[in-house]
Amino acid sequence: MSQADDPSARHLTEEQLHSQLIYDGKVVHLYVDTVKLPDGSTARREVVRHSGAVAILPLDSDGRIVLVRQYRYAAGRALLEIPAGTLEVGESPDVCAARELQEEIGYRPGRLQKIGGIFVAPGYTTEYIHLYLATDLVPSRLDADDDEFFEVLHLPLSEVLARIRRGEIADAKTISAILLAQEYLK
Amino acid sequence: MSQADDPSARHLTEEQLHSQLIYDGKVVHLYVDTVKLPDGSTARREVVRHSGAVAILPLDSDGRIVLVRQYRYAAGRALLEIPAGTLEVGESPDVCAARELQEEIGYRPGRLQKIGGIFVAPGYTTEYIHLYLATDLVPSRLDADDDEFFEVLHLPLSEVLARIRRGEIADAKTISAILLAQEYLK
Repeated sequence: MSQADDPSARHLTEEQLHSQLIYDGKVVHLYVDTVKLPDGSTARREVVRHSGAVAILPLDSDGRIVLVRQYRYAAGRALLEIPAGTLEVGESPDVCAARELQEEIGYRPGRLQKIGGIFVAPGYTTEYIHLYLATDLVPSRLDADDDEFFEVLHLPLSEVLARIRRGEIADAKTISAILLAQEYLK
Repeated sequence: MSQADDPSARHLTEEQLHSQLIYDGKVVHLYVDTVKLPDGSTARREVVRHSGAVAILPLDSDGRIVLVRQYRYAAGRALLEIPAGTLEVGESPDVCAARELQEEIGYRPGRLQKIGGIFVAPGYTTEYIHLYLATDLVPSRLDADDDEFFEVLHLPLSEVLARIRRGEIADAKTISAILLAQEYLK
């Protein structure tokens, strides 16, 4: 049973009274909504509506995890992350996962397993990331977006865990995927 | 060595050429920046500048994890999460962690250990969450914000992991904190 179906949570619900579009960008669609709180009073909610995303934990034929390093302007630094990308309009998460893998690391997944999903910042964005494990990788490259630059690294799980502990891997979706895939990793 | 200091990442850097404030809200401060890419071309970056946050994994005297259930308007459902909150202006993460714990679960931490930190959505937000483990909890309550409604649950680690696997816990900071605290949990 998901939280959404949990009748015990119903009394916590906030109801939309009004919604105003502030900015309609490429990634960020910002709204300011007025909501009715459980006690009947009202509050303002700033909401980034986002089309959703996928992130894929790829395992190579040696059982190493394939990561990408890319500069993240909002973070102000390069981050080491699992491959990921935003859903295009009407695109299914499975199709998006296979596309992003080919664009970012040059492989398509022979096998793609859903391992979960995460809300990244539910205080102000609707973004939900579908998480996958990709195995049986087959070389296949698609061109990445013009404004994306990557380095690809293959690291054993022990090294990925060490880099997480040292703070060198500090990306929420990457750390979440490692925990969710733990039963498949050695 | 952090990624920021990694000389191998320098050629990936994006340089700010221009920044325009679009919306200056309570939580969301939205900018559209123009950046110079590694190949010399330019691109637009939508950036939510955020003051940063803390999230705390509290362990009660029975070793159970203390979680809060709250309705998350952006997610459209109630989520089960570790206590968390946004840094106030000039507030240190340690002070913020102790404050949020008292507001959300009615305890102050006898011991507070930094276990790491995460970027939640580095594609478009600067938000970085400082992650803590809180133990030796002492009853102490501070009033929560008027627009926040919580339920508090104490669950053993095995139950938290089962709910993560079933998708009933789907919050990135909560799942990340569980992995980062693993050596302290049993």
